[in-house]
Amino acid sequence: MATANVVTPQSEDFPKWYQDVVAKAEMADNGPVRGTMVIRPYGYAIWERMVAEVDRRIKRAGAQNAYFPLFIPQSYLAKEAEHVEGFSPELAVVTVAGGEELAEPIVVRPTSETVIGEYMAKWIQSHRDLPLLLNQWANVVRWEMRPRLFLRSSEFLWQEGHTAHASAEDASAYARRIHTEVYNDFLTNVVAVPTFLGIKPPSERFAGATNTMTCEGMMKDGKALQMATSHELGQNFAKAFDIVFQSDAGESAHCYTTSWGSSTRMVGGLIMAHGDDRGLVVPPRLAPTQVIVMAVRDGDDAVDAACASIVEGLLASDVRVSLDRGRGSFGRRVTDIELKGYPLRVEVGPRDLAEGVVNLVRRDTGEKTLVPVADVVTTATALLETIQADLLAAATQRRDSQTVEVATVEEAIAAAQTGFARLAWDLVTPEIEKQLKGEALTVRCLQRADGSMPDHEKEAGLTCIIAKSY
Amino acid sequence: MATANVVTPQSEDFPKWYQDVVAKAEMADNGPVRGTMVIRPYGYAIWERMVAEVDRRIKRAGAQNAYFPLFIPQSYLAKEAEHVEGFSPELAVVTVAGGEELAEPIVVRPTSETVIGEYMAKWIQSHRDLPLLLNQWANVVRWEMRPRLFLRSSEFLWQEGHTAHASAEDASAYARRIHTEVYNDFLTNVVAVPTFLGIKPPSERFAGATNTMTCEGMMKDGKALQMATSHELGQNFAKAFDIVFQSDAGESAHCYTTSWGSSTRMVGGLIMAHGDDRGLVVPPRLAPTQVIVMAVRDGDDAVDAACASIVEGLLASDVRVSLDRGRGSFGRRVTDIELKGYPLRVEVGPRDLAEGVVNLVRRDTGEKTLVPVADVVTTATALLETIQADLLAAATQRRDSQTVEVATVEEAIAAAQTGFARLAWDLVTPEIEKQLKGEALTVRCLQRADGSMPDHEKEAGLTCIIAKSY
Repeated sequence: MATANVVTPQSEDFPKWYQDVVAKAEMADNGPVRGTMVIRPYGYAIWERMVAEVDRRIKRAGAQNAYFPLFIPQSYLAKEAEHVEGFSPELAVVTVAGGEELAEPIVVRPTSETVIGEYMAKWIQSHRDLPLLLNQWANVVRWEMRPRLFLRSSEFLWQEGHTAHASAEDASAYARRIHTEVYNDFLTNVVAVPTFLGIKPPSERFAGATNTMTCEGMMKDGKALQMATSHELGQNFAKAFDIVFQSDAGESAHCYTTSWGSSTRMVGGLIMAHGDDRGLVVPPRLAPTQVIVMAVRDGDDAVDAACASIVEGLLASDVRVSLDRGRGSFGRRVTDIELKGYPLRVEVGPRDLAEGVVNLVRRDTGEKTLVPVADVVTTATALLETIQADLLAAATQRRDSQTVEVATVEEAIAAAQTGFARLAWDLVTPEIEKQLKGEALTVRCLQRADGSMPDHEKEAGLTCIIAKSY
Repeated sequence: MATANVVTPQSEDFPKWYQDVVAKAEMADNGPVRGTMVIRPYGYAIWERMVAEVDRRIKRAGAQNAYFPLFIPQSYLAKEAEHVEGFSPELAVVTVAGGEELAEPIVVRPTSETVIGEYMAKWIQSHRDLPLLLNQWANVVRWEMRPRLFLRSSEFLWQEGHTAHASAEDASAYARRIHTEVYNDFLTNVVAVPTFLGIKPPSERFAGATNTMTCEGMMKDGKALQMATSHELGQNFAKAFDIVFQSDAGESAHCYTTSWGSSTRMVGGLIMAHGDDRGLVVPPRLAPTQVIVMAVRDGDDAVDAACASIVEGLLASDVRVSLDRGRGSFGRRVTDIELKGYPLRVEVGPRDLAEGVVNLVRRDTGEKTLVPVADVVTTATALLETIQADLLAAATQRRDSQTVEVATVEEAIAAAQTGFARLAWDLVTPEIEKQLKGEALTVRCLQRADGSMPDHEKEAGLTCIIAKSY
């Protein structure tokens, strides 16, 4: 029996597939102002899980949350020349407030970097105040000409970390710790997206940074998505904002600062890294609903009782579970459930139940297993672990098979049409970078030959990843 | 030995005391744009605890979180005439974005009510989509002429709930459920602020509401603070935004909607309800740090080991604990610790330790108890419960002793100079309300004679609370 696709197949039109999944899985809608988005309850529940997991890791790394204002005096942005240049075409500006024209226009924060710099300067006096490790969860605004839900929206939600240290070594070590223990650990072990960890080439660095680290994930269409970045800012930022401390010996010196961020963009990455032609696929550790218990027939006492007891058993084992009562056709209900990407479905039907079993269905592979009712919790718990591991393994296999080692720029351009190309970094001159850009390609990151993260782009023997990107 | 006050005494100048506590306990700073605030890590940690506790209750009541855009087209606000009138002097307006003058100005949300209304209209088709129970955690902007940190800031953080129902009864029951099971339960049992639960007089209702419920707390200066409100909007809002559903019988009808909110204002309420001349006093269930373990002497191995073992024991019992290592004078450290209002301090000193004991000091009463090291966890855990109960009892006693039953408007005006006056509601005509306003007093809420919440302001035998307020 052929069923109509509820979403456009990936192979037919990947961007259309993405739009369909975002809409039909009820993740998000376009907002009334161009480029803004409404994050619907299911999309927001996934974001809340991301926030909880990232926040826990940030706190474990010793940073404290704070909140800085949405509004920034326009003059603040001018303090860091490179900063204002980078952001000014993207700014939203408030010129009227409280019924009056403002004397100085106010900018809606594109990041809180400048305000945080001002307050760091105020709060830091001596080496005893260092390191100062701050993080903020907030909305930011960057006017977007070609918006796309989650991936590029004029307003997005994110966290931005900002830290100040007494030495370059401390700052560098902390930024690397955040990058690996917060971002890469979360992306790999929760979102099940294996990333290429590396540093950006100088041309792609954040304005004012001495080094930018990135986690580059591969989406199912072979394009790269930058999923989180961390910056070492040296003393550049501290000098612009006069962030100074007195050393033990009583000498004044500028701090070394870092900044690092991740955003609702990761939701887009989740969709494109695991989704398939039936919709979303959410890894169990991230999923707001890990198991959906489906009453195959409504109003059947035996089915209702079995569902209730399975739900209770799963909740008692700390599994996040939802119940889907019968309404509408079985096929239609399965389609809706698959769209949402819940990792595991337990079908509780009267005929199976008469034989003491229920049907466990994996969302990722579609594999079905009949399991005695008494074993559901044990089997489901184990299957969730298996699904988590299998999703990471499948994504890693995909990434590696679509990453081609090449020897020339021409080969890189060819390979990057469908995946990543890995090329020796010393072959990529500024002119070559320009040529790549002409082909809609960029150097996503630099890595050592063993795949580890370099200290600096001038290290010998580095390779680089070249790809199309979001 | 007389020590200088680190904060202005409450009896001398209560507003100055408030400012001092906010600054010296490192709760918040003024932001660079007038009326905005920087919430510092300690203030934000308290807000995070509030968010966690309120959010848990909201989810238990069945509402789902979502996120709506910061920016609202100006035309949206015009849809609800009363709405635009209520908010327009407080709006911040974006006229330039992406480097260009905008064709239609954009408003920074003063609430998301109008956008949420638009999307509810889109998402609701049939009675099967009801009730639709949404909540949002977000920042909102209302331009503030006389700003005050936490209490009145141009930008503040809050949650706003918006729900749509098929019947007036359902809507009313849900709003009352939120008001009692979320707000009043949280304020009473976590923040330890006993509130007067009641409905607002028609003159103080939210624009467009058919009924507004409030939780009024008494601050230590005898003034009232409205700590959370819930609104029944009847069909007014649904008609303005065309929120329509098809009944089971296939007929079209407008929904009944509710909205309800609580904000960072509650942090101001916490400060003023429990704080004293030594600083903040935070109830244990709310406190980010419930117990501070203080190493009286730095670098003493026995002290260090005892501190570490006490911290570990408390953590293992799920107590939120911090360690204060010796730096600076003992007196100065105690002053700083008291400013922050941690409920319980464990002083670990070498002399006490030689006798196998440590000193437990309650922040609320100053009471000290020498406790064998082996008993610290048990004693501290029990003391935290006692402190929580005692803070609520003390606040209740204060509120009740400062609430005077009066028979005339003149007596009400006199009594409301230092506390709350309770007067028969039928004595308060619109003219009397004007007279009260002339004395800087308002009717805070209406209650039944037994203190319960009325259904309607026209019920017979209601009393009202008259007070000064924030």
